[in-house]
Amino acid sequence: MQSRMTAPVLYLDDKLLILDQTSLPEKADYIELQTKEDVWDAIYRLKVRGAPAIGVAAAYGIYVVMRGSSETDWEGFYAEFLLAKEYLNSARPTAVNLSWALERIEKRLVQEKKNAEKSAEDHAGENAAGNINRERMLEVIFQEAEAIRREDEAACLAMGELGLTLLRPKMGILTHCNAGTLATARGGTALSPLYVGHEKGYDFQVFADETRPLLQGARLTAWELAQAGINVTLICDNMASLVMKNGWVDAVVVGCDRMAANGDGANKIGTSGVAILAKEYGIPFYMFVPTSTIDLNISSGEDIIIEQRPGEEVTELWYQRAMAPAGINVYNPAFDVTEAKYITAVVTEKGIAYPPYSESLPKLVQR
Amino acid sequence: MQSRMTAPVLYLDDKLLILDQTSLPEKADYIELQTKEDVWDAIYRLKVRGAPAIGVAAAYGIYVVMRGSSETDWEGFYAEFLLAKEYLNSARPTAVNLSWALERIEKRLVQEKKNAEKSAEDHAGENAAGNINRERMLEVIFQEAEAIRREDEAACLAMGELGLTLLRPKMGILTHCNAGTLATARGGTALSPLYVGHEKGYDFQVFADETRPLLQGARLTAWELAQAGINVTLICDNMASLVMKNGWVDAVVVGCDRMAANGDGANKIGTSGVAILAKEYGIPFYMFVPTSTIDLNISSGEDIIIEQRPGEEVTELWYQRAMAPAGINVYNPAFDVTEAKYITAVVTEKGIAYPPYSESLPKLVQR
Repeated sequence: MQSRMTAPVLYLDDKLLILDQTSLPEKADYIELQTKEDVWDAIYRLKVRGAPAIGVAAAYGIYVVMRGSSETDWEGFYAEFLLAKEYLNSARPTAVNLSWALERIEKRLVQEKKNAEKSAEDHAGENAAGNINRERMLEVIFQEAEAIRREDEAACLAMGELGLTLLRPKMGILTHCNAGTLATARGGTALSPLYVGHEKGYDFQVFADETRPLLQGARLTAWELAQAGINVTLICDNMASLVMKNGWVDAVVVGCDRMAANGDGANKIGTSGVAILAKEYGIPFYMFVPTSTIDLNISSGEDIIIEQRPGEEVTELWYQRAMAPAGINVYNPAFDVTEAKYITAVVTEKGIAYPPYSESLPKLVQR
Repeated sequence: MQSRMTAPVLYLDDKLLILDQTSLPEKADYIELQTKEDVWDAIYRLKVRGAPAIGVAAAYGIYVVMRGSSETDWEGFYAEFLLAKEYLNSARPTAVNLSWALERIEKRLVQEKKNAEKSAEDHAGENAAGNINRERMLEVIFQEAEAIRREDEAACLAMGELGLTLLRPKMGILTHCNAGTLATARGGTALSPLYVGHEKGYDFQVFADETRPLLQGARLTAWELAQAGINVTLICDNMASLVMKNGWVDAVVVGCDRMAANGDGANKIGTSGVAILAKEYGIPFYMFVPTSTIDLNISSGEDIIIEQRPGEEVTELWYQRAMAPAGINVYNPAFDVTEAKYITAVVTEKGIAYPPYSESLPKLVQR
């Protein structure tokens, strides 16, 4: 199945390749990242985007950076690692998966050093050197990067299989933004059941909201589903109501950027509107939420701060000419919160949660 | 008050001028229409758009065309008029106000000829010539064009004053597409109460949906309200849910392209979604509907056919580069139907109708 799905980050023949998503849908070109500047730039310029995909790119990225290091002893190697980590982190300071992946690799590296020291002590008594060589340090980083990728692929597949139990062949499915393979290691979150079902001949009819202002639905979701041979129709965001009224939508599937303990889920701007329309038309609304995205320390969506972005994204970006009067006021929130009452079920890699979420989510996260 | 509102069609110093709306918001240039080709092109290329504004432009347009005619007797003049009428009608065959305005002028012209014949009979007995001269024929056309413009301005003002009774100072108002002065002779339909209220110091806070795919909200509504000094903030269509949830919207005002006897109203794509959101958030939703737009012969919105437009409007228009994969399926309906149950009140130039509309609308239309 996975052969049909585009992986946004590949490590092949000792090369780190990423699909340049800023060129989609016109060109689908993999570019090689060779230096730390290459990796930083790819993350900063959104050539790789989507929280899990950024984490995977950063993990392989720091491996490629350290592979180029001439340091051979621990002190020099570790110092260089910390500088590279800080530098890569600065590419997108608010991207949680970026710092999380680099942090995880650092911990693994430090653990390996401690293990070496302990092993040296056990064999040669206190104050033994406990050195690890350069090759071993690189191997540890690479293995951790592989693990981060594999775990995300497995979570995507699990969400796909669980999500598919909620769907039936030939269903019409509406989605918003891009929670697809391009946003993850491979497989996607909300789009994962579509890929899993497609391999089983489910023949879904998918509607992709274009998702203004940055058009992730038009540029990315429509592209990746069409690539996989899944039937997809592009609509403007404001057409969702008519498409639902026409009886063409049997389920809505969306991703989630952050979910509170009560089930309120922040996701791309417009998601809450889609949820309200789905409720009005009696259509189930499913949110796909890796457990790492559920923050039990936040009681409700009221506590989630919505990122405001530049108005020029609405008035200028993508356009040949000014789309709106110069200097006009623009409100451009990047996300909104969908209240738990509109969410039919929350699909995680560990299982499906149903309302009341304040009871079901903690159980699932702790499983 | 009217000085603040841009008139999309002007007849000044014997010149027919229209504001070229295809150049908005970058340029606000009036262009002179001198020939029948000029008038046809302005309507065909949407330099003038909005049902009432098209009617006014066509009315003055056929006057300008006939002013250039060298025919001096009735037969020649009338034959040329019919050719011009047919030609102008072909610019937008589905625009009801275009054919309506030209038809109305023809009837007035024919009536004038009959009056002249009757007057000649009365004075000189049967078989009298009853000729009318070229000057009189042109005067009749011009007067009818003026009447069409004046009546539309009066209807806009009446809707504005009636609509304002539903609003309060400092209210937040959300609107979709452009039902403003640019779409009418002058004053607008849904935006008319905003102009009337602004002159009284109401200090509205207006949110304009950009209205994909053709962006009438961003290009036209934001422009005309800002021109008039009304506080307006542009949002993408998918942001309406969050703006409402933020508590920033006290009322929604929209226009209507066609209303059925039961109160179902067809309007720009996305209107029905806004209405459902308004209902969910407990916000009144007002539709502004000249009685000429109410079709009592249609029992419900089910019978209104939705115009489908080219997918390229979604994937290409306005953009520097492809916005979506080449050849992707696109569903691009131009309108949707807002069910009567979501409409709090229908504002016409004759009064305000409340549910049940199947009782209130016929009474109002026949008033």
